[in-house]
Amino acid sequence: MTSFALIQSAAERVSQHARVTPLLCSPMLDMIAGRHLLVKAECLQHTGSFKFRGGWAAVSALKPDALKRGVLAYSSGNHAQGVATAAKAFGAPAVIIMPKDAPDLKINNTRALGAEVILYDRAGGESREAVGETIAQKRDLTLIRPYDDPQVIAGQGTVGLEIADQASELGIREAEVLVCCGGGGLSAGIALALEKRAPQMRVRPVEPKGFEDMARSLKQHEVTSNSKLTGSICDAILTPRPGQLTFPILTRLAGSGIVVSDEDALCAMALAYQHLKIVLEPGGAVALAAALFHGAAIQTDAVIAVATGGNVSTEIFQKALTLLPDCERRYTQ
Amino acid sequence: MTSFALIQSAAERVSQHARVTPLLCSPMLDMIAGRHLLVKAECLQHTGSFKFRGGWAAVSALKPDALKRGVLAYSSGNHAQGVATAAKAFGAPAVIIMPKDAPDLKINNTRALGAEVILYDRAGGESREAVGETIAQKRDLTLIRPYDDPQVIAGQGTVGLEIADQASELGIREAEVLVCCGGGGLSAGIALALEKRAPQMRVRPVEPKGFEDMARSLKQHEVTSNSKLTGSICDAILTPRPGQLTFPILTRLAGSGIVVSDEDALCAMALAYQHLKIVLEPGGAVALAAALFHGAAIQTDAVIAVATGGNVSTEIFQKALTLLPDCERRYTQ
Repeated sequence: MTSFALIQSAAERVSQHARVTPLLCSPMLDMIAGRHLLVKAECLQHTGSFKFRGGWAAVSALKPDALKRGVLAYSSGNHAQGVATAAKAFGAPAVIIMPKDAPDLKINNTRALGAEVILYDRAGGESREAVGETIAQKRDLTLIRPYDDPQVIAGQGTVGLEIADQASELGIREAEVLVCCGGGGLSAGIALALEKRAPQMRVRPVEPKGFEDMARSLKQHEVTSNSKLTGSICDAILTPRPGQLTFPILTRLAGSGIVVSDEDALCAMALAYQHLKIVLEPGGAVALAAALFHGAAIQTDAVIAVATGGNVSTEIFQKALTLLPDCERRYTQ
Repeated sequence: MTSFALIQSAAERVSQHARVTPLLCSPMLDMIAGRHLLVKAECLQHTGSFKFRGGWAAVSALKPDALKRGVLAYSSGNHAQGVATAAKAFGAPAVIIMPKDAPDLKINNTRALGAEVILYDRAGGESREAVGETIAQKRDLTLIRPYDDPQVIAGQGTVGLEIADQASELGIREAEVLVCCGGGGLSAGIALALEKRAPQMRVRPVEPKGFEDMARSLKQHEVTSNSKLTGSICDAILTPRPGQLTFPILTRLAGSGIVVSDEDALCAMALAYQHLKIVLEPGGAVALAAALFHGAAIQTDAVIAVATGGNVSTEIFQKALTLLPDCERRYTQ
């Protein structure tokens, strides 16, 4: 079980290697959001997403013989890069199970990190969990789950420690913290960190429309699944259902979920490009989209959005740029 | 005259308001550069460029009656936004003289900051210095020059203080520091800061081809002018000649200049997008371009490139993205 103490010990191992990402803001985004908006730019993290933290926390917690045998992860890309990077640093072999429809950038980056990549058919209904567990067992590898792993949640929780420190330096103690949510590992880790370090801050998970399993599960007080696994550009956060470890944490600590459209995510990407000078992927932009375009759902004067990753295909980024004039007209008039 | 003491006192005024920008890196960029490459991401600074620092340093140094009368700046955009932002914070009226061919983004941003914008015809040979000085005198405004101003140079020098601290934390004490160079204010400020704080680091000014007045002047030991003022996409750093204050500082402290093509700058923008997740404008990418593509000119194992700004027109950014596959092929095979 992930505790605050586990986050602190993860921070000791991770902090020498992870980047302290900046908390960015812009007068124009404040104006659109209608409140002070701070953006935790985890796209600037090593490997281009916060997943580096969880991957490093999990791999660095392994004993030498487990490292020698190697690790396995299933991931749409960002967790894969996090695990592969950490594995490489610790000299451990890494096998990564990725969906065939993940962006080429993520697949290529994972291979470039020295990992063995095995592709599976997400659209055809193959379960990455089943594929991953079978191969892990057969090859005697340690499976590092993308969110249902205490060390991974603890590693992601280091984002929460930084948010508490950085916001406090700016004099902000009360805020809703919007987090892009797949299985809930980052949301849960941040929630645990904030519970101790910034008790007046509350996590709000944000998901793409049609894949709001966490929002629905929190509302219904039980785990419910998505009816589909593809059909949004937010590939990084399309998970089947809330995690077994993450859901109880979020039930206890998080506020209700917020749901945004793919178009909202594209506009958030375009405005982050224009006003913050950062590159986001759709799944990494949904929290910012919620802060910008769903202000009615937010209850605090200040809001913090975690911009979780920037590993986007150029085709989709170009599409976001094409929408920029419409986005600016839509939200600034 | 700008001294290290003036930089320190500017840092006291600026540091509460400027962002400490991160020093980014990526294994792929190290591979292309052939050495360890650190990128000081000043595009993440308030107003999207380092010019915020110099503008704030200069405006915050003014006496109350001068603030009340107001300030004037001539600028292709980034200095304008820096001065306008600082003037607004201090309640001072701001008049900005901008070239008609500056990107709309920069003109609009400057107006949005509450400044009065007066456009002049750069291509037609009008001198912004003459236009600016005439209006400043007529309206009794304090002229804040973009680089030939001791307080502006001191403000830009705070980038050098941060580079020294951040590199030292990473264990790097010896490096060439590549700086995008227009009139030389940032290069001179950084050089003065490094002289005291990191004496084994040396500034190398980087300019676009056809506008290498600083490189040529340093080589010839006398100020020489560019033969033209337009014709490169690097609009932010197309200045007529080295500054009267900056040139003596750089003659004493800087290494030789490096010259890159517009295509180099576009490729550096594309690779910064892909591997660092930051948005750069062409003039803000020339130092990174030099680090990536002109390694033969660099003499240290580690190199630091200052990525000075990200206020790019989307048309030009799209062009850089279109070139990305060619850039990756060109430099990674």
